[in-house]
Amino acid sequence: MKIYRFLHAGSPAAGIADGDRIVRYSGAGVLNLGTATSESIALADAELLAPVSPSKIVAVGRNYAEHAKELGNEAPSEPIIFLKPPSAVLAPNGTIVRPPQSQHVDFEGELVIVIGKIARNIQRADWRGVVLGFTCANDVTARDLQKKDVQFTRGKSFDTFCPLGPCIETELDPSALSLRTRVNGETKQNANTHDMVFDCSFIIEFITSVMTLQPGDVILTGTPAGVGPLASGDRVEVEIEGIGVLRNVVS
Amino acid sequence: MKIYRFLHAGSPAAGIADGDRIVRYSGAGVLNLGTATSESIALADAELLAPVSPSKIVAVGRNYAEHAKELGNEAPSEPIIFLKPPSAVLAPNGTIVRPPQSQHVDFEGELVIVIGKIARNIQRADWRGVVLGFTCANDVTARDLQKKDVQFTRGKSFDTFCPLGPCIETELDPSALSLRTRVNGETKQNANTHDMVFDCSFIIEFITSVMTLQPGDVILTGTPAGVGPLASGDRVEVEIEGIGVLRNVVS
Repeated sequence: MKIYRFLHAGSPAAGIADGDRIVRYSGAGVLNLGTATSESIALADAELLAPVSPSKIVAVGRNYAEHAKELGNEAPSEPIIFLKPPSAVLAPNGTIVRPPQSQHVDFEGELVIVIGKIARNIQRADWRGVVLGFTCANDVTARDLQKKDVQFTRGKSFDTFCPLGPCIETELDPSALSLRTRVNGETKQNANTHDMVFDCSFIIEFITSVMTLQPGDVILTGTPAGVGPLASGDRVEVEIEGIGVLRNVVS
Repeated sequence: MKIYRFLHAGSPAAGIADGDRIVRYSGAGVLNLGTATSESIALADAELLAPVSPSKIVAVGRNYAEHAKELGNEAPSEPIIFLKPPSAVLAPNGTIVRPPQSQHVDFEGELVIVIGKIARNIQRADWRGVVLGFTCANDVTARDLQKKDVQFTRGKSFDTFCPLGPCIETELDPSALSLRTRVNGETKQNANTHDMVFDCSFIIEFITSVMTLQPGDVILTGTPAGVGPLASGDRVEVEIEGIGVLRNVVS
């Protein structure tokens, strides 16, 4: 099922897709859905929110060999992890703000794992039990600052640099999904998640051997080849098979 | 004044030091102190908690020239920032757990800025207005993993790798404070915050030009020279003039 979070009478609400409508549930968040209410809203009319408010955004770098190559790197022997701050989260249809410090802001479409249970030292075979579902992210990156600093943090941490959404799909096999990123309708990234260097089970085992994940935490699983810059007025879309389209505009 | 957070009847409580006692306040946290109650507890008997539960831990790398040199780096032209996850926070007197993945876990004593107000695009001259006060941190680092990954994140993100405390001192000029780190009573770091490459005002302006800080967020301002490894059974202390001593043990 597809769980959405949206504004309802000015407050966050959660619901489940039923065709082209969202049935509102009594709970306020995707981790605490409650029960179905008698209300529903047209998906096209809903003011969507990011599907979760993570305490942590963990990201995996260079997890597609072709992307590592396009930036002059080799695919790593172990996952390279970094963190984005929760303050970077942006809702579907929200505006990505290019900061004055950067002359080169790139899109990076990514499959996201949404954690559903406290997760520490999870074995590969058990990875699915701690996962609520999957969504899309745009791991927006100030490429010039990332290169200057060597550390990825500043270039990936600006407010609005982590669009998430549009929903969480809870019933999905993430091992071979089509992933496309479009800018103004033109396809820029066209890949499949089966080309990940480290798959979701490996990533969950690796990250939870380092840090305890909380329900609502998200893992960005890396971007494929085809990254490129965003300009003022651009419309950027990340589409993943079985989940949907995460749309944002650029200021 | 010195604000402490501690366990009271099994729940978090906050209070203010009065001599060698803590007067309990009605609020549950340092950001919402409430009013003084008639109760107090001996500081020596208090089960201290980390003074805040940050949504973000932002850290500054190589902010003392002598420390940058001891690890073979130059002092940077702009602050190098990285993030530690909230799951790494450890209370005073808590146990730092050395993970099996690392053969080389270092201490790093640091002055911490505790944010008191939502802070975005703060000018240097206004920095103090968004700061609640100051505490101590040990930016525990798996040095071997930090070097292997190049990205600092994994080596600095293990659970227990961010001891914070013992209290928040709200009335302090951080520009020239003695900072000492001791292991089993032996002084390993002996420095002064006036040797920071970038001072607190610069750091606040720099970080808030990237990301919005929330009340309770913390900034680790970098470690001076003298870092070294921790072994099982070690007692490590970070002492900063005017704040106090952050003590932890190592498993």
